[in-house]
Amino acid sequence: MKIGILGYGNLGRGIECAVKQNEDMTLAAVFTRRDPASVKILTEGVPVYHVDDFTAHKDEIDVLILCGGSATDLPVQTPEYAKYCNVVDSFDTHANIPAHFDAVDKAAGENGHVALISCGWDPGMFSLNRLYANAVLPEGNDYTFWGKGVSQGHSDAIRRVEGVKDGKQYTIPVEEALNAVRNGENPVLTTRQKHIRECFVVPEEGADLAKIEETIKNMPNYFADYDTIVHFITEEELKANHNGIPHGGFVFRTGVTGWNKENSHVIEYSLKLDSNPEFTASVIVAYARAVVRLAKEGQKGCKTVFDIAPAYLSAKSGAELRKSLL
Amino acid sequence: MKIGILGYGNLGRGIECAVKQNEDMTLAAVFTRRDPASVKILTEGVPVYHVDDFTAHKDEIDVLILCGGSATDLPVQTPEYAKYCNVVDSFDTHANIPAHFDAVDKAAGENGHVALISCGWDPGMFSLNRLYANAVLPEGNDYTFWGKGVSQGHSDAIRRVEGVKDGKQYTIPVEEALNAVRNGENPVLTTRQKHIRECFVVPEEGADLAKIEETIKNMPNYFADYDTIVHFITEEELKANHNGIPHGGFVFRTGVTGWNKENSHVIEYSLKLDSNPEFTASVIVAYARAVVRLAKEGQKGCKTVFDIAPAYLSAKSGAELRKSLL
Repeated sequence: MKIGILGYGNLGRGIECAVKQNEDMTLAAVFTRRDPASVKILTEGVPVYHVDDFTAHKDEIDVLILCGGSATDLPVQTPEYAKYCNVVDSFDTHANIPAHFDAVDKAAGENGHVALISCGWDPGMFSLNRLYANAVLPEGNDYTFWGKGVSQGHSDAIRRVEGVKDGKQYTIPVEEALNAVRNGENPVLTTRQKHIRECFVVPEEGADLAKIEETIKNMPNYFADYDTIVHFITEEELKANHNGIPHGGFVFRTGVTGWNKENSHVIEYSLKLDSNPEFTASVIVAYARAVVRLAKEGQKGCKTVFDIAPAYLSAKSGAELRKSLL
Repeated sequence: MKIGILGYGNLGRGIECAVKQNEDMTLAAVFTRRDPASVKILTEGVPVYHVDDFTAHKDEIDVLILCGGSATDLPVQTPEYAKYCNVVDSFDTHANIPAHFDAVDKAAGENGHVALISCGWDPGMFSLNRLYANAVLPEGNDYTFWGKGVSQGHSDAIRRVEGVKDGKQYTIPVEEALNAVRNGENPVLTTRQKHIRECFVVPEEGADLAKIEETIKNMPNYFADYDTIVHFITEEELKANHNGIPHGGFVFRTGVTGWNKENSHVIEYSLKLDSNPEFTASVIVAYARAVVRLAKEGQKGCKTVFDIAPAYLSAKSGAELRKSLL
């Protein structure tokens, strides 16, 4: 199975690492918007092409993994590249998924390719768990918590504050809220009751620390609705202690069964990830296998994780899976 | 969607309750080996037939849910009824799944029906989580823990001991083992280190309690390899405090990613169930929906949860699912 990567940032590098862990796959090409000569990848002997030369090399790959961002890259790239080949993206702007699906479905369907959108862990593995749990317990409540982990968006927001040189933000689920859900109490939780935001900020020399803290804590959308903790640290401390990109979270469904709804059940799924982009990449690579198989069966159009039978993700045969994992 | 139930015990009653919670389904008929007049079901106006009259009524249902046991009922029933209609079973003897699959696949395939085997939570939801997690993290370790919950097989074993009037056994995962796995320590665990067995025993009057306790604790396969706790209680206490059939458990996969396998990840799925048969039934009913849909598409043969795309389980449309759960 020949994998192509478009965009060689954290996610692209994660895809490269994940491909190495799967014996039925090889990395066939990396496409970049930068000067290809300036992009040094980890895998020996794999070509790096400029993205403008994509169509000349499209037959060298079975599936292209789009590693751009959801804000501006993927809404353009996924429908565009679905014209030329099978694609997988990690589009994660939940509200815009229906529109993105329609655009990609049109392009992939008209050109006979399979395109999988919104792959990763949320959307992705978390979505699967929401769907399975909702199907099994039709009467109940859903809860999703994120963290402990680095929010790229909130870290960027901190870094835009005047007097801030660098910074990192951790989203942390509130332990009491987790336990209330886990105990089947079905709590109604406000934004503030669900997550804490903890910021590690490197101030510019001579900056007004009180003003930075106040600006962060009152920032609408990002921090104002949360209990926010601000720590001021040195650049060295940031590098030494906050260098990783961990993340994770929890998906719960609590529900009732029985003739009189007398029995309660709690379904919990959680992830604890050292590297958000590498885990996201690992999910995407498993689904890339499914996409290639579906395409070989003659399927076409846009798919999500909801549309793909789990067996397609595994390199093992149906018989092996039934014997070892069922 | 018209549901038939074969076998009206705890699981059959659970199916009946689950059908009531799903608006696109109706219970069409119950089939029993007992005298139908003696079987009083919860749903008004639904016929109870003798199992010998099944073929006369097979067209009244879209799918038959087989609620017998895995030891002797299902190996015979599932291939037999797959000749006449679409079926779902909860066959849970893991080692015999491949042979069961082959027998059912032949019967269902030759007769143009869809048969889903080994549906429930283990096998079932736990199997799905093992498969997804293995596909996403190809290099890692799997752990499955059961409980806290009632083991029917171990409770039966207690009741066969001389001098025991009644009894119930709880399987309990060892907290230290759970935490070691959760912390990514990748422990190698013996049977004893994974689960505790706690027994509540009602002795016959004048029975030799020390002998009962010794017999239980040394019973091969069932208790000898575990730390077993035996409590002697009265019949009234058993009824008052151990009347339910709770169960649950944990599925973990821990694995590594990165060019040098430098990042670790923990995937955890857990269930905490007030009623084992009702939750099993809820899973089966969601999959019964999928089976009917697959049959309408013209599919046939034996399937497992691995072969069915998640969207088939939900009453919602693809567009609704993408909007609300992705």
